[in-house]
Amino acid sequence: MQQLSEAEISAIKDESARAYELDRAHVFHSWSAQELIDPMTVSRAQGSTIVDGQGQSFLDFSSQLVNTNIGHQHPKVVQAIKDQADLLCTISPAHVNAARSEAARLITERTPAGLDHVFFTNGGADANEHAIRMARLHTGKHKILSRYRSYHGGTETAVNVTGDPRRWSNDRGDSGVVHFFGPFLYRSEFSATTEAEETERTLRHLERTIELEGPSTIAAIILESIPGTAGIMLPGSEYMQGVRALCDKHDIIYIADEVMAGFGRAGKWFAFEHFDVVPDIITFAKGVNSGYVPLGGVIMDEEIYGSFAQKAYPGGLTYSGHPLACAAAVATLKAMDEEGMIEHAERIGEEIIGPRLRQIAENSKHVGEVRGVGAFWAIELVWDKESREPLAPYGGGSPEVASVVAALKEHGVVPFNNYHRLHVVPPINISEEDLETGLGVFEKVLTDLDFSR
Amino acid sequence: MQQLSEAEISAIKDESARAYELDRAHVFHSWSAQELIDPMTVSRAQGSTIVDGQGQSFLDFSSQLVNTNIGHQHPKVVQAIKDQADLLCTISPAHVNAARSEAARLITERTPAGLDHVFFTNGGADANEHAIRMARLHTGKHKILSRYRSYHGGTETAVNVTGDPRRWSNDRGDSGVVHFFGPFLYRSEFSATTEAEETERTLRHLERTIELEGPSTIAAIILESIPGTAGIMLPGSEYMQGVRALCDKHDIIYIADEVMAGFGRAGKWFAFEHFDVVPDIITFAKGVNSGYVPLGGVIMDEEIYGSFAQKAYPGGLTYSGHPLACAAAVATLKAMDEEGMIEHAERIGEEIIGPRLRQIAENSKHVGEVRGVGAFWAIELVWDKESREPLAPYGGGSPEVASVVAALKEHGVVPFNNYHRLHVVPPINISEEDLETGLGVFEKVLTDLDFSR
Ligand SMILES: Cc1ncc(COP(=O)(O)O)c(C=O)c1O
Ligand SMILES: Cc1ncc(COP(=O)(O)O)c(C=O)c1O
Repeated sequence: MQQLSEAEISAIKDESARAYELDRAHVFHSWSAQELIDPMTVSRAQGSTIVDGQGQSFLDFSSQLVNTNIGHQHPKVVQAIKDQADLLCTISPAHVNAARSEAARLITERTPAGLDHVFFTNGGADANEHAIRMARLHTGKHKILSRYRSYHGGTETAVNVTGDPRRWSNDRGDSGVVHFFGPFLYRSEFSATTEAEETERTLRHLERTIELEGPSTIAAIILESIPGTAGIMLPGSEYMQGVRALCDKHDIIYIADEVMAGFGRAGKWFAFEHFDVVPDIITFAKGVNSGYVPLGGVIMDEEIYGSFAQKAYPGGLTYSGHPLACAAAVATLKAMDEEGMIEHAERIGEEIIGPRLRQIAENSKHVGEVRGVGAFWAIELVWDKESREPLAPYGGGSPEVASVVAALKEHGVVPFNNYHRLHVVPPINISEEDLETGLGVFEKVLTDLDFSR
Repeated sequence: MQQLSEAEISAIKDESARAYELDRAHVFHSWSAQELIDPMTVSRAQGSTIVDGQGQSFLDFSSQLVNTNIGHQHPKVVQAIKDQADLLCTISPAHVNAARSEAARLITERTPAGLDHVFFTNGGADANEHAIRMARLHTGKHKILSRYRSYHGGTETAVNVTGDPRRWSNDRGDSGVVHFFGPFLYRSEFSATTEAEETERTLRHLERTIELEGPSTIAAIILESIPGTAGIMLPGSEYMQGVRALCDKHDIIYIADEVMAGFGRAGKWFAFEHFDVVPDIITFAKGVNSGYVPLGGVIMDEEIYGSFAQKAYPGGLTYSGHPLACAAAVATLKAMDEEGMIEHAERIGEEIIGPRLRQIAENSKHVGEVRGVGAFWAIELVWDKESREPLAPYGGGSPEVASVVAALKEHGVVPFNNYHRLHVVPPINISEEDLETGLGVFEKVLTDLDFSR
């Protein structure tokens, strides 16, 4: 990001003071107690940098809500939005539109063979809502299986498949969702001590759950290919292939939620490619156009499509296939190709982020584990390495974790934080220089930590 | 719209042929049997005009899905989108952002006193999802009352409060929604023959429903201030004031769905202003920025806000308060003021659309009733005026209605059609000239109709 002039900084300060005041008076914030928050102001950003209300720059190691995969203000995407704005901002989903058609083509070009139809939505939650509806209507069954430690969105069905405390106050026990435990060796439910054991035991657990819930009642299993907000726990390939086999055996639809993990975040177009499996339905949002314009969607195979070829699909939304959002997706996917971003993400994960974080973990008393792939990494902050007790309780925060986040920010880096975890999720096209700078801050802050009770 | 050159038309034809082919191969359409549709291509539009894949122009009397209140490609809104795209396309809802703050200020400036807090969403369905969640958590009650003949969106909760056949295949009977009959004199459920009777009987029916369902079980009543897709049936002021009184008496939240009726469509900022009532929660989308960028939201009063001041609201979404969408809203609301669009809508309804449609009704064998306000009008097509039997069955179409729609298109006008009804819902800032031209086509086509069985 270019250095800001004094005049620019002074303008930012004035604008931000007013924005803050109006925000507190009129803007209701997601997932928050409105009067217990003190949000940071951001009205400028570029690449991997965001600028706060004082004109101070920070490295964005959060990619906001892990959506700006391509960084802030990518010139090709900005230009595409402006061009489409000049041409045609919006049109009803009932019509054919060139930007929408081209986005659908480029998206399905990147999916495995057979996954050729896209139903566009506005974001991730409604993508999951519609994917689940399609699975239910296609199978004629109702129950949905989903992991504990997962996030699938904020609307009624999406929040009920979510396996995270954000579900609790929305859960009346009548959603038809059953949660099971997925592979997570570091905190194994099944006392596994090796990946092979964890895979075998979690697969057996899933099989038992299916058998005891009744295969004839289960429409779909929905899985983040790599659980994101819940902790970036990579499953083994055998686990995922085992899930696929169980779905085939019992006539269950396998829905891969790629909202956070997809479009380069995990160093592949889709994270499930790591595991050599092909889902029946893919849901996406975020990285598809980095959220420059709200967009999400459902990609389905021929069988699901076939269920709605001669019979109406009972779902829709005013902004399905929004031209401006689709034009941003077209530019994003092309730029990702042209600039080799997917490969870049894979490489920086393997060569830079992974090695650096593992070294930090070795040298820090409070880093229990680091794990990830591509530009998608989690750091487990624990009281001590033996007990592995999280530095903040499940579903909450702690003064200790808050102090770590504050220290990172003080040194110019904004991380993604969930409970006791820090996630290292910068734009997937972050420069090596910015990456090294940011990781240097993580190293300094985390190595120095010394909490005791 | 400017005349297109030969070269432009030829470019449009080429682009559209390819767009159509890709659409049929890859784009899954809302509410449709995918292989039974033959969608029109639209990649250019301006003001009240849209251009098809052959380069032919049509007057857009649908405003797409009744969302382009400000017409297509309004220069001020297009410019605002381009400026914000240059500045900052997106930022997390956790941060304060100037465009978001300003949109919230301008929206709440237009609401009745006390309705001062905005939770932004991507569209209408998620606005209703969150409004209902807020009402449930605020009251500690679960049941929602909603009208038959209503539409509230496509996600799980939104489609279940919907009182329209689109709910049916999504309804398992466990949504906690109870539907009642609202005022609709032309097809009165209660054998009323005057507005006063209809008001009295529908209010009594609602009161009985509340008493027999149990006031202690009912969280909210959700009502489109003027039901849109279901038929633009204006309630009387006494009815709406009666609903408000019943809500007050029984500690029920009154949610006004202004997604379609709001932001000038009905000749007021909010359609409930016609009835001198103030809801507890307002939901909006569409007209707020004409859908140039997906945006919706929930406006709540201090009491609802207070429930989430010290305790977290359990809901959210990645694109809440999207800067690009909010910048489009800011420009839209300002342009509506500067160009007197709200007054224009009110006036054309009173002086032009209403009188012309009533005249058409008199002269047409198959127009049973016309009704509406502002730029929001419905035409009931019936077999004959005595039986009032709809020209297409409830929830379906008919060759007769299809032929009317085709005739309108042949004469250069695209209407909004739902079952047996045509809606006259052009941009609220349509010029008198375009309006007269379009109404002339309605007159010609409808006056000539002569169906028999
Ligand atoms: C895996 C996953 N699915 C779904 C969602 C919901 O997406 P949205 O916030 O756009 O509704 C998210 C958002 O964080 C996500 O991470
Ligand atoms: C009254 C009303 N409410 C809600 C909605 C749903 O809005 P969206 O399609 O943006 O989800 C609509 C859409 O037509 C509507 O007319």
